[in-house]
Amino acid sequence: MMTEHDDQRQGHVAVFDSGVGGLTVARAIANAMPGVRIRYLGDTARLPYGTKAQRTVTRYALQAASHLLGQDGDDTFDALVVACNTASACALDELRAHFDLPVLGVIEPGATTAVKRSISGHIGVIGTERTVASKAYHQAIAEIAPNHSVHALATPLLVSLAEEGWFDHPVTETVLETYLGPWFEREDTAQIDTLVLGCTHYPVFKPVLERVLKRLTGRNLSLVDSARATATSLKKVLGTRSEHPRPGEVRLLATDASERFAHIAGLFFPQQANDLELVDL
Amino acid sequence: MMTEHDDQRQGHVAVFDSGVGGLTVARAIANAMPGVRIRYLGDTARLPYGTKAQRTVTRYALQAASHLLGQDGDDTFDALVVACNTASACALDELRAHFDLPVLGVIEPGATTAVKRSISGHIGVIGTERTVASKAYHQAIAEIAPNHSVHALATPLLVSLAEEGWFDHPVTETVLETYLGPWFEREDTAQIDTLVLGCTHYPVFKPVLERVLKRLTGRNLSLVDSARATATSLKKVLGTRSEHPRPGEVRLLATDASERFAHIAGLFFPQQANDLELVDL
Repeated sequence: MMTEHDDQRQGHVAVFDSGVGGLTVARAIANAMPGVRIRYLGDTARLPYGTKAQRTVTRYALQAASHLLGQDGDDTFDALVVACNTASACALDELRAHFDLPVLGVIEPGATTAVKRSISGHIGVIGTERTVASKAYHQAIAEIAPNHSVHALATPLLVSLAEEGWFDHPVTETVLETYLGPWFEREDTAQIDTLVLGCTHYPVFKPVLERVLKRLTGRNLSLVDSARATATSLKKVLGTRSEHPRPGEVRLLATDASERFAHIAGLFFPQQANDLELVDL
Repeated sequence: MMTEHDDQRQGHVAVFDSGVGGLTVARAIANAMPGVRIRYLGDTARLPYGTKAQRTVTRYALQAASHLLGQDGDDTFDALVVACNTASACALDELRAHFDLPVLGVIEPGATTAVKRSISGHIGVIGTERTVASKAYHQAIAEIAPNHSVHALATPLLVSLAEEGWFDHPVTETVLETYLGPWFEREDTAQIDTLVLGCTHYPVFKPVLERVLKRLTGRNLSLVDSARATATSLKKVLGTRSEHPRPGEVRLLATDASERFAHIAGLFFPQQANDLELVDL
């Protein structure tokens, strides 16, 4: 129920990821809701999450969320966004049980967008080992469209290539062909018309991915980037608090102070790149 | 001073690395000293170390060593081996200040071997970003051979390729050419005759590396794998405790229970792959 108090408040959102990938989500939130305050934590000291066991990822997600939400007490935040597919796949239930505020992952919004776009009913998903092993996209899509087929492939090396900055590079092209070539030769993947980028790092590869997919399949596949879809879901949760006229401030925290994070954070939020805060978890 | 008690004791060594790379060192120790007991910890939950800040790596190294040495008290161990170049480069002084037993890194033994082998006096080093930024090989080689030239290049993606199991793969070949091609076109690298594999993950790439180096330089470079050199240094530290007739047992611990670690550990220590212990740091 909306009260006058809610109308006046400026939205305040906590966002976390294993590293820089979630900045695509934070940027989409800032673009869609310029009046919302964002506090972002990249758990850069312990990335990548995608190759680790579910238990480990869940523990890290709880620690990251506790740090983000705990500083000012839960009541100043309107929502927690888990801007990491691996953490969304592993830890969403635990986070929802543990914290008394809306918790949004990136998988449900991505799954919803994919179902809307797919005509053939065959949806492909690429992601980390842990996300693929979790079958989280299978479950999320089955709940919305039980007759759709989901085909998932682990492409773990892409996270390292994104961190190396090799966004459109001959090595990246070869890696994509190595992963996707044999996959699209299989009979069950022939009807895929929509491919979910099931890792928040992957949108940086869109141009090279489109080229490789066209070459391998001869078709134009629709690529689903869940950052925008997540921002749309968040807007519904925040209601009028998403439309505050005062510009929202962005604070960036990281668990490791490497130059990498500052550099890539600066590409997404140029004004905040010098105010990076280091935290221990 | 050697006492009768020392003669009778079975050597007991603590070894740690960020993940699986240090298993090359543990295997070299087991091969050179079959009567030595080894306790190995792979900090797989927080790997890779090589892209992280020095402060973070030092903190992780102290935690890993405290866990390994603390369980039975320091006095049952004869030495701590830091089987990770990044941790050796960042944290060796702190570890030596903190623990009252011999602490061996992999950099000094590798540097010594490289100086022995190089005829031209030009030594190349490839390693992680952190190891290269630390200039640890420059310092170690300057202490032994002040007139030698050291040329270091960061090749960070190789760790992910090793973890992916792409030891001799077209992608790995392209990555090596991308890193090494422009490097060997520079004038100052033309006389390199010895290349240190400055990361304990890298020995798995020896065959493809030899091929690429031959193609790029037209010469046969000598590759220095510091695992064996470290085992030789350790043997001197242990003295007669390295020659106990009873077979040494190997215990493997990891901070993340992913199948990857069990799989790769099984390649190095087939008998221990099923007895992996999970620890929280």
